[in-house]
Amino acid sequence: MERIRSEIIRQKLTTPEAAASFIKNGMTVGMSGFTGIGYPKVIPGELAKRKEAGEDLKITVICGASMGDQSDGVMARAGIVSRRYGFQSNKDMRAAINRGEIQFVDMHLSQIAYWMKAGYFGKVDLAVIEVAGVTEDGSLICPCAVGIIPTLVRCADRIILEVNEKVPAAVEGLHDIIDLDLAPNTQPIMITSPGQRVGTPYVKCDPDKIVAVIRTADENMNAELKAPDDDMIAIAEHIVNFFNAEIAAGRLPNPLPPLQSGVGGVANAVLSQLAKSNLENLTVYTEVAQDAVFDLMDAGKVLSASATSMTLSPSIRDGIYARLGDYQGRLVLRPQEISNAPEVIKRLGVIAMNTAIEFDLEGNVNSTHVGGTSLMNGLGGSGDFARGSGLSIFTTASTAKAGTLSCLVPHVSHVDHTEHDTQIIVTEQGLADLRGLTAYERADLLIEKCAHPKFKAELREFVAESRAKAKAFHALAR
Amino acid sequence: MERIRSEIIRQKLTTPEAAASFIKNGMTVGMSGFTGIGYPKVIPGELAKRKEAGEDLKITVICGASMGDQSDGVMARAGIVSRRYGFQSNKDMRAAINRGEIQFVDMHLSQIAYWMKAGYFGKVDLAVIEVAGVTEDGSLICPCAVGIIPTLVRCADRIILEVNEKVPAAVEGLHDIIDLDLAPNTQPIMITSPGQRVGTPYVKCDPDKIVAVIRTADENMNAELKAPDDDMIAIAEHIVNFFNAEIAAGRLPNPLPPLQSGVGGVANAVLSQLAKSNLENLTVYTEVAQDAVFDLMDAGKVLSASATSMTLSPSIRDGIYARLGDYQGRLVLRPQEISNAPEVIKRLGVIAMNTAIEFDLEGNVNSTHVGGTSLMNGLGGSGDFARGSGLSIFTTASTAKAGTLSCLVPHVSHVDHTEHDTQIIVTEQGLADLRGLTAYERADLLIEKCAHPKFKAELREFVAESRAKAKAFHALAR
Repeated sequence: MERIRSEIIRQKLTTPEAAASFIKNGMTVGMSGFTGIGYPKVIPGELAKRKEAGEDLKITVICGASMGDQSDGVMARAGIVSRRYGFQSNKDMRAAINRGEIQFVDMHLSQIAYWMKAGYFGKVDLAVIEVAGVTEDGSLICPCAVGIIPTLVRCADRIILEVNEKVPAAVEGLHDIIDLDLAPNTQPIMITSPGQRVGTPYVKCDPDKIVAVIRTADENMNAELKAPDDDMIAIAEHIVNFFNAEIAAGRLPNPLPPLQSGVGGVANAVLSQLAKSNLENLTVYTEVAQDAVFDLMDAGKVLSASATSMTLSPSIRDGIYARLGDYQGRLVLRPQEISNAPEVIKRLGVIAMNTAIEFDLEGNVNSTHVGGTSLMNGLGGSGDFARGSGLSIFTTASTAKAGTLSCLVPHVSHVDHTEHDTQIIVTEQGLADLRGLTAYERADLLIEKCAHPKFKAELREFVAESRAKAKAFHALAR
Repeated sequence: MERIRSEIIRQKLTTPEAAASFIKNGMTVGMSGFTGIGYPKVIPGELAKRKEAGEDLKITVICGASMGDQSDGVMARAGIVSRRYGFQSNKDMRAAINRGEIQFVDMHLSQIAYWMKAGYFGKVDLAVIEVAGVTEDGSLICPCAVGIIPTLVRCADRIILEVNEKVPAAVEGLHDIIDLDLAPNTQPIMITSPGQRVGTPYVKCDPDKIVAVIRTADENMNAELKAPDDDMIAIAEHIVNFFNAEIAAGRLPNPLPPLQSGVGGVANAVLSQLAKSNLENLTVYTEVAQDAVFDLMDAGKVLSASATSMTLSPSIRDGIYARLGDYQGRLVLRPQEISNAPEVIKRLGVIAMNTAIEFDLEGNVNSTHVGGTSLMNGLGGSGDFARGSGLSIFTTASTAKAGTLSCLVPHVSHVDHTEHDTQIIVTEQGLADLRGLTAYERADLLIEKCAHPKFKAELREFVAESRAKAKAFHALAR
């Protein structure tokens, strides 16, 4: 079936080379994509060819979140990217950032659309957007991730579309698009439950902005999620037990408020374990619907889910795509300024579950930097959800580097989330409920519940020394 | 005029001693009050008398924000408070916290009502609430601060009212009360401009909960704001110049989005300088309306203002109280879960202006701890506004301790606001616009614009050393 239903837009079909020629040295280019889904797969390669052929070509790239290797990887290796805003998770891009070759600015994902509309990034010269198709009236059908597409369509001077046949056609109708205005034209986001639709399925687009359209059939190159290991299962079990105890104590309602779960294996494992629990009638309000969200919907455990991206392991992708229509009415894909909106997260009392690299005795969390200076991926939406949530949970194994390093440390080497935004911390060892505790109380509880036994003695010694040398007792000494 | 218009409530009038007798050892007691306004002024003294007479009396105190000396001070000196949640700014309470005698848990002010309703603080045995009066149907008329009064009325088992004659009767009608339900009964906060009313002027209260009522005529003991010094004026001028430049560049609309300004002299000075600027048709969405907000309304510069507390210097208080009726329709006092709601702050694109104790080369801000362990006051609403804002500004003098310490340091000793929530930093030396900059770019700009000249060389040396020894360049080395 023809994916470009508008004759006007079809007339703009061209070659990748001709399309990419609109991108010039020094431009600021916005790209679609969110956690390895829905990003441009062809134009970045064209740019790399030009660079390799000797052209002087450096651009600033803004993306809602990470792109796959055909984009972030290709551009990083070609040395095209001078600055990169948003989030990334590509190993070559990460290496270039850590070498100081790419100037990467890490941000809360909820901020990106606002910043672009307010002009904080400067002018967006051009946007490259993957779409599932184009409707009769020239509106865009988003791919399996919405991210900042509506904002790019609004803000970019020119637009290149990559119409990708590999995007399942049945994604049409899953999207719920609204595009917030800025002050003084403010408006509430009228979402009061995760599955609620408040917008339209399509992104309205001025056809005059579209300067080129190409057809592609390239798959997303997101990674396969690892099967849960023993640590992940233990973490997930602690969380399920905690949920049940909180429901019994009247501090959480049953059914639970909507769940958010970060990106990656641990986040997926936590949700997987919920499938085996007694908890029913769950809902999900998150940024990325990973494999487990679909398992839970299939099992009838999750009634509805909201996300900005559906990031499926390659091994299960085709199976889900084949019956994607079954999820209509239960799954909603929203712009990331809505999926990650503090407004909605706070209103729904979302239970946020995010992963830490390390955490400290006061409950501060480092989720981005290994050893304090080396960037792993980025902040992503962890801050949007942790801060906005009704209950904020962080998870990590108690040790790293084959058990040689404790993930509970005296002071984290980089603070992404302060003690005020970390209420529950969970390792495979146990769960610490830090709500309403002071710094020293947190320290004692974290050592007791979350530290690996082999590190407990030295951590206790640090606390004792801090207490002995401190002049004031509201925070731990350094 | 009789302030207690309900016969049923009048019948509960009793002596302070009898009222205070409902408070027993070990109870959790909620108290009204916000930044030294609208707190109980009599019952705490009664408790202190009992303690001094030898009674075993320790309680947990939850307050929306700080109380004046008749409450936080009296209770701290008497040794009554075992735990204290919220925010405080009393010197004796601060000292007791830093000695480790009072277990103080610092929180985002937007969280307190949610935590109480969700049961995270446990049961609230009793609330002591100052009111301006009681209506015919037994509803409460809040004093000059709302804070968590609606939540206390909802959650506390029993209520003691202090009906204070010194509260200006004309405060009636300035309040706009809504009380948010938790999941699954969620609802949008339908505020789209600061002066908009979305609730009712009164707090509905179950008369059976009210166990005692006393009459008082004690003044709030908040401090006089200092007149702006040269540093404050310089900071304010940098900000006004910046606003004008941003408007010219199209990155801020004119009129500006609503302004938030923190608590204290610098915050007040910044607003005062706006009165002398060319900026017109301003609005304010903040937690505390200080002196300058009234000056700006009087000057016609501020059209409408929303806050949870009006904290006026004693020297101007009576003058404002005498014509408080003039502010009807322009000034709205809201519960703090609304004044500090991330939902509304984000929606309105509020310009947040908060004060730092110190800030670091990456742009992280310490706003609570002197030397890393000694609590100053607390986080207050700074995190609510900085994170939620459309633009986040932090201010401080470039030096402390009579110029001997630089307030720009390599790494802050305590992180309250991460680099992701601090876009503009201003000292008397200048203004650094950190938007879209990496860690090293931030460091260079902060030294250039904000550092005191006498500390620039050693800060530059730190950056050079960091660059030389770093293995990765996404954050500064420690």
